Amino acid sequence: MSGDQTKFTQKPLFYWLLFIATAVVVFLIGLFGASVLERRSESYQLLQPVKPIADWEPSNAAWGENYPREYETYRATADTSFASPHGGSATIDALERYPRLVVLWAGYAFSRDYKQGRGHYHAVEDIRNTLRTAVPQPGTCWSCKSTDVPRLMNKIGAAEFYKAKWEDLGPEVVNNIGCQDCHDPKTMNLRITRPALIEAYQRQGKKIEESTHQQMRSQVCAQCHVEYYFKGKQEKYLTFPWDEGSTAEQIQSYYDKIEHVDWTHQISGTPMIKAQHPDWEIFQMGIHFQRGLACADCHMPYRSEGGVKFTNHKISSPLENVAGSCQVCHRESEKELIGNVQERQEKVRQLAGMAEELLVKAHIETRVALDHGATPEQIKAVHQLIRQAQWRWDFVVASHGGSFHAPIECARILGNAIEKAAEARTILAGLLGRLGVELPVPMPDISTKAKAQRYIGLDMAKLEAEKGDFKKRVIATWGEPAL
Amino acid sequence: MSGDQTKFTQKPLFYWLLFIATAVVVFLIGLFGASVLERRSESYQLLQPVKPIADWEPSNAAWGENYPREYETYRATADTSFASPHGGSATIDALERYPRLVVLWAGYAFSRDYKQGRGHYHAVEDIRNTLRTAVPQPGTCWSCKSTDVPRLMNKIGAAEFYKAKWEDLGPEVVNNIGCQDCHDPKTMNLRITRPALIEAYQRQGKKIEESTHQQMRSQVCAQCHVEYYFKGKQEKYLTFPWDEGSTAEQIQSYYDKIEHVDWTHQISGTPMIKAQHPDWEIFQMGIHFQRGLACADCHMPYRSEGGVKFTNHKISSPLENVAGSCQVCHRESEKELIGNVQERQEKVRQLAGMAEELLVKAHIETRVALDHGATPEQIKAVHQLIRQAQWRWDFVVASHGGSFHAPIECARILGNAIEKAAEARTILAGLLGRLGVELPVPMPDISTKAKAQRYIGLDMAKLEAEKGDFKKRVIATWGEPAL
Repeated sequence: MSGDQTKFTQKPLFYWLLFIATAVVVFLIGLFGASVLERRSESYQLLQPVKPIADWEPSNAAWGENYPREYETYRATADTSFASPHGGSATIDALERYPRLVVLWAGYAFSRDYKQGRGHYHAVEDIRNTLRTAVPQPGTCWSCKSTDVPRLMNKIGAAEFYKAKWEDLGPEVVNNIGCQDCHDPKTMNLRITRPALIEAYQRQGKKIEESTHQQMRSQVCAQCHVEYYFKGKQEKYLTFPWDEGSTAEQIQSYYDKIEHVDWTHQISGTPMIKAQHPDWEIFQMGIHFQRGLACADCHMPYRSEGGVKFTNHKISSPLENVAGSCQVCHRESEKELIGNVQERQEKVRQLAGMAEELLVKAHIETRVALDHGATPEQIKAVHQLIRQAQWRWDFVVASHGGSFHAPIECARILGNAIEKAAEARTILAGLLGRLGVELPVPMPDISTKAKAQRYIGLDMAKLEAEKGDFKKRVIATWGEPAL
Repeated sequence: MSGDQTKFTQKPLFYWLLFIATAVVVFLIGLFGASVLERRSESYQLLQPVKPIADWEPSNAAWGENYPREYETYRATADTSFASPHGGSATIDALERYPRLVVLWAGYAFSRDYKQGRGHYHAVEDIRNTLRTAVPQPGTCWSCKSTDVPRLMNKIGAAEFYKAKWEDLGPEVVNNIGCQDCHDPKTMNLRITRPALIEAYQRQGKKIEESTHQQMRSQVCAQCHVEYYFKGKQEKYLTFPWDEGSTAEQIQSYYDKIEHVDWTHQISGTPMIKAQHPDWEIFQMGIHFQRGLACADCHMPYRSEGGVKFTNHKISSPLENVAGSCQVCHRESEKELIGNVQERQEKVRQLAGMAEELLVKAHIETRVALDHGATPEQIKAVHQLIRQAQWRWDFVVASHGGSFHAPIECARILGNAIEKAAEARTILAGLLGRLGVELPVPMPDISTKAKAQRYIGLDMAKLEAEKGDFKKRVIATWGEPAL
């Protein structure tokens, strides 16, 4: 007991020092608390625009004044230096890498020029420059390229927009894909600005306006990253072919019923379908979608700066940021995860290559059969098989990241493509055998893009010169894209 | 200060009660501790046999006296009532379900009888009963069926064991696959009892004795669940064909170099390879192996009873015990996980069906071409393609669970099988066309097992009668399997 009394026998100076030290500590804790609250309020403030944004404001810079972090990261999509570990890069010339594509698309503008898209920040520049827009195109081709599209559609209506001439709309479309394509300027909520997606949902009896926020984090991407076609010879009305479902087979059945033909193949005379980029369709057939992920989870993962957690708007391959995307869930090393992706892609790629080889041969053998007197009636089944096989192959290879998003489904589709292309060749071999044609039919040298383009009779120098002239005469008057 | 003194002013009775209560609580804690220690010591005791087990002891019951939990769960493999959600069950007659297999294996014993294995507990009974052992077989066929095999090999040597007649060894082989196949009787450590696996590792310069325990939890299974062949016309020496690697392509290359032929196809005359069950090979190409799992993790997951944690020896489909296997890692519902498995299997199955259809046609068209005067020289490339295609297809479908273990690899292999079978048919169509044969060649009705067996000329009633007679004359003298 006596010990307790001893403690209170310290000198008064001790108690003064204790008092002052306590005061200092409490003051510092107060400062720290204020800093936390300030950062918190900063993150709230960010939800409210400092300068109000006008309806249909196409300028990304104007939005960026209010949302500097999102704008800065969006602008980083200008940087296309990332070369993916599987040999991808933003400057891939697909026709150089896979010259067979030139033959597969003979008679269609894709055989002239097909490069990997360089990302949202370059959309306007890239569509101005491609040789595919050297042939007359409708306004529909602008639909996914610019924040000016919602503005123009609001002004003149979607139907008028689509059926305008591509070059007539050129001067009006200068702002690259950006903020208002996906966001409401008042609330910053995600919103759908493109009628084609809303209309596709309506035709299926689904209400897109009832989507959750997590669903919207994919659906804003699905405004463009989908399979589509231009409906009507004059109308060129942008339409998503999902009325029977969105597998390769269901979409083909839809196209067959409306007898949709994108082009007649220059060599084989087949009524072809060109797949666009069914990214969203294929993503939905894979495990990441099935486990509840949205596009933005991996392509725009959250990032923290100071007290602010925000969505990184540098939309890119998750392989550019494995730590921020894959490793949020997967506990394996970056090297191992990238290896897993590559393995899937290489296996699917092997099957795609087989389908390409068979299809090239099928187109050429069909030509030889026709030249030796095969009747349209005899070739009908062959045309049907080539159309179906190339559609399936294209559905997979045109899809960005399909062989990662849903590798088993992609392999399944390609297995079907191989079977159908080979079946066409079996029928052709019987026909050619009976027509007395020596087999195998000799194949041309299409080992480079230049050789393949020469083989299908493209005068690339002339096409380039014409495009150069068009750029000087017309595109130059549109002004610089708003970069 | 004075309060402290107050506390000690309670009556003596209070302290006596406190003392007694403390004594009671301490006693109960002591009892609980003793119970924990007892359970702990029980689980240690279990590692030491109560009754020592002799070297090469084949009787599972003898081992079971020491390890009742493992033995009870092992005996539960007798129960084959589980029907997997994808329509599998232990009593599937594969030829009933897929009658095309009869034609694909024409001329080989598999076309007579091919049922799903019923599990380790039924191994001896099942091999006695199958029609495949009605044709003369070597001792090698017993290699994976019984705990008597290590005992006999120790006695007469592996080489003598293999080249004995199957029926001569029959009386000696009565204990079903069990304890000593995988365990050391002294230490219970996992051990390899079959020379073929050890020899295959040695030829590749690998030391299986340096394997970790986790590796051994797969490798004991890999003694049997692998691709193999019988080397030497007389020797019939069990050999794993992994010298160049264990992909479908690498194993085929190995077989081609040694000109290995399992049988000559009765219809097409093709020199064929029959795939066995490359379960371990395909498992290694899938994500579960890549993430460090062993066979036992999913097929024999741990279980707790009282204080004892032990390995469930009811080796079975993980779908029979999703909670104990998949859900240890995956946080999805049982229904969703089973759905994921089914989706993979159905997609791979679609491609397998295509390959089967093409191969049946290729065999029959080859026959027609030969009957119309095609020369062996003309048919050589066709034979080569059929051999390669059917090997690939068989590699996938013969593998237990392959379409789950490595679905992308299986789809890739089947895509290759489809391409090669179709290429054979393309060559055949050209040949047949030139030979003036009307195309398409009519196909027989093989829509049931009975029709398909009749088509290839099997007199099943006679074969069944002969087998029945053999069972009465010979097998009946071997005694009952030790169940």
